[in-house]
Amino acid sequence: MVLKVDHFSFAVQDTFKLRYLINDTWRKQQNAPIFFYTGNEGNIEVFAENTGFLWEIAPKFDALVVFAEHRYYGESLPYGNQSFADPQHRGYLTSQQALADYVELIAHLKSQSGYQRSPVIAFGGSYGGMLSAWIRMKYPHVVQGAIASSAPLLQFTDVVDCEAFSRITTSDYKAANPTCPKLIQKAWSTITNVTLNGNEIVFQRFAAKSEDVKTLKNFLQEVYIDLAMVNYPYETNFLAPLPGNPINISITINLKISKLMIVFCQHLTNVSLTEKPLLLALHRAISVYTNYTGKTNCISMKNAEPGLDDQGWDYQACTEMVMPICTDGINDMFEPVKWSIADYNNTCFKRYSVSPQPYLVCEQYSCKNFNSASNIIFSNGLLDPWASGGVLRNLSQSAIAILMPDAAHHLDLRETNSNDPYSVRMARKFHRFWITKWIREY
Amino acid sequence: MVLKVDHFSFAVQDTFKLRYLINDTWRKQQNAPIFFYTGNEGNIEVFAENTGFLWEIAPKFDALVVFAEHRYYGESLPYGNQSFADPQHRGYLTSQQALADYVELIAHLKSQSGYQRSPVIAFGGSYGGMLSAWIRMKYPHVVQGAIASSAPLLQFTDVVDCEAFSRITTSDYKAANPTCPKLIQKAWSTITNVTLNGNEIVFQRFAAKSEDVKTLKNFLQEVYIDLAMVNYPYETNFLAPLPGNPINISITINLKISKLMIVFCQHLTNVSLTEKPLLLALHRAISVYTNYTGKTNCISMKNAEPGLDDQGWDYQACTEMVMPICTDGINDMFEPVKWSIADYNNTCFKRYSVSPQPYLVCEQYSCKNFNSASNIIFSNGLLDPWASGGVLRNLSQSAIAILMPDAAHHLDLRETNSNDPYSVRMARKFHRFWITKWIREY
Repeated sequence: MVLKVDHFSFAVQDTFKLRYLINDTWRKQQNAPIFFYTGNEGNIEVFAENTGFLWEIAPKFDALVVFAEHRYYGESLPYGNQSFADPQHRGYLTSQQALADYVELIAHLKSQSGYQRSPVIAFGGSYGGMLSAWIRMKYPHVVQGAIASSAPLLQFTDVVDCEAFSRITTSDYKAANPTCPKLIQKAWSTITNVTLNGNEIVFQRFAAKSEDVKTLKNFLQEVYIDLAMVNYPYETNFLAPLPGNPINISITINLKISKLMIVFCQHLTNVSLTEKPLLLALHRAISVYTNYTGKTNCISMKNAEPGLDDQGWDYQACTEMVMPICTDGINDMFEPVKWSIADYNNTCFKRYSVSPQPYLVCEQYSCKNFNSASNIIFSNGLLDPWASGGVLRNLSQSAIAILMPDAAHHLDLRETNSNDPYSVRMARKFHRFWITKWIREY
Repeated sequence: MVLKVDHFSFAVQDTFKLRYLINDTWRKQQNAPIFFYTGNEGNIEVFAENTGFLWEIAPKFDALVVFAEHRYYGESLPYGNQSFADPQHRGYLTSQQALADYVELIAHLKSQSGYQRSPVIAFGGSYGGMLSAWIRMKYPHVVQGAIASSAPLLQFTDVVDCEAFSRITTSDYKAANPTCPKLIQKAWSTITNVTLNGNEIVFQRFAAKSEDVKTLKNFLQEVYIDLAMVNYPYETNFLAPLPGNPINISITINLKISKLMIVFCQHLTNVSLTEKPLLLALHRAISVYTNYTGKTNCISMKNAEPGLDDQGWDYQACTEMVMPICTDGINDMFEPVKWSIADYNNTCFKRYSVSPQPYLVCEQYSCKNFNSASNIIFSNGLLDPWASGGVLRNLSQSAIAILMPDAAHHLDLRETNSNDPYSVRMARKFHRFWITKWIREY
């Protein structure tokens, strides 16, 4: 759909094409509900493929299914390959502009015959969940209710403790095996001193040059976090192809997949490991993430999430999505790094010529005092690091928090699986109950 | 205060100074309420001088008083005398940007010591009332409640009947004297045919050249409407210096002002008036508006509202504030003119190189389905033409409509006067009740 690049001024008249996926297979009657996924930071197809819940319930509601791509991601690049070229081109990558895109798209859908009085339910996970909550808050006349799964709406400056994220990540590894995070922690200094004790030979299994220590560390940290995020109880392919319970077997044992035995923390059980053997064990563990299929030849350490688009997200993180995350090395398994807005600002300014606005999101959307929010379900899995910034208690009578103790990042939005924990199955029932209520009340 | 010209992108880094008036005389304690007037289309001083209600109640609430000027008006010109020079400069004159200015200003005020937990109550009349309602709808975490007086939130395409505005205007004249609107109507053709019957001599009392027929008609129409808007029961100086009940004496008679006898419809009581005598009578009537003080030598027909800033408003009307108004000459006293978006579009495009967006306001803020609005009082005087676009019924349990049958344009926001009708006195009590409640609930 053709949209304005800038919805909030009349100074810029440029337009661009926003991609959206649409499926009206189950729409049987006039004014059928519209299930609208508010796309996040990546190719919309990835989200359409990983949001099975929406597809499963659409037939029950005779709903029209729409997955809208977020501007500046996938094929929805406002200025083609120049979209990130300079501040003028990339400057329209903001959440408010994205919400306005979705509002325009919904208006377009509803202007069509047979949809004039269709209720609209927004769905989203993670940043997409923030967008689904925010579109309901800002445009309650356009969206009648929202399912915001694993949406870290509160992961902002002066709102949450920056270390909580790392602590949750660590607890996932600890739960698998208390030795596992200890060895992960021990490995940092071994990597730092890679030129000592002839460890370089092992190091080369990770990276070509010993100068890549910092890059490797960043990569490892990202993989540890990603594994915690997608620590799903069955084989998936979201951030990477992975076995079920990739950190470790939890309660469910799926005998069909022999690869189960090689999951992450299984490689890190011997507390006495040091030096070369530790690095070797770590390399085997990491390959659960990097080479579960056994077919990966080479992986870039610059991008642990090839399914998502780092370029766009890095820019958003440097403008409005300033989410403080820190580590202390005591309550978490990482090297201690304080959160420094000054350093962060320098990095962002060098890279994008912008100054991050750490208070903007809370000012625009609120981070407390949400009591006029309505018709939103905030679901959070407590295995998910991002639960640190989630809405974990009810905001009002119809803006409700659900906690899923044994779920990772937006597991409730995935398709039903026999390995789903009870809390996730209940959460989906809860979603359906509220969606029914919102549609009926409209 | 220094603010970004564009709050919704990172492409434009220009800043400008927004003017605001502030008075902390009555603030006695920590976290005192902030009474925040969301300035409209004009110099903020005009609104500070004509919003006596706010000043009267501020001491009772120990409130900090703030009047914020709207960007592109008064002294708050983002690009100085180039602000309207071209589409790039004037394009940031939008209501959303103005609301974001106010949100930033409030954040700034609340960041100061002693204001961190201050509740904020927004006040506004007319377009300012729309802004006060919208700021509460869009930023409920920033503004705890809003008094939106005579705010035509619904005066948009496909929402209200475009003729209602003209009908209400006419009814004010009819109420004064049924002959009055009839003579006004009869005068249109006399003006059209000004070159006949030697009427030109009289015409020259209005305008220099007979080619000015169209300009004069527009001016007269604007004056008729303005008189209906400011048909206050006592002497005022808002759009122009005026006697009380300028259209006609209503119930109250103020013996102190001898000028009372010359109010508008008093000149238009003889139904048999035609030609020269009719024009002469009309000229005397109009001078109630143009020369109540007896000191006006010359008045520009291009601008019947010198206190407001037509340049900015005309641009807003050509972009988002597309408020359809039409006349039929049957139920109203005007020459029949249909509402034509095509003509409107042409005029706007010629003048500003923009296409009006008649559906934008309803899309962004809603024009129906307001049921999640809360903590807003919509007051409307039924003598006010703008009541045609007002919210005249309750939207929710705390978004409440008050009708004042005998009040003109936001009379309830003016200072107390012994001539205030009962409904206005009651409305002010109601406002105070709700403000107290909102502050207590915060």
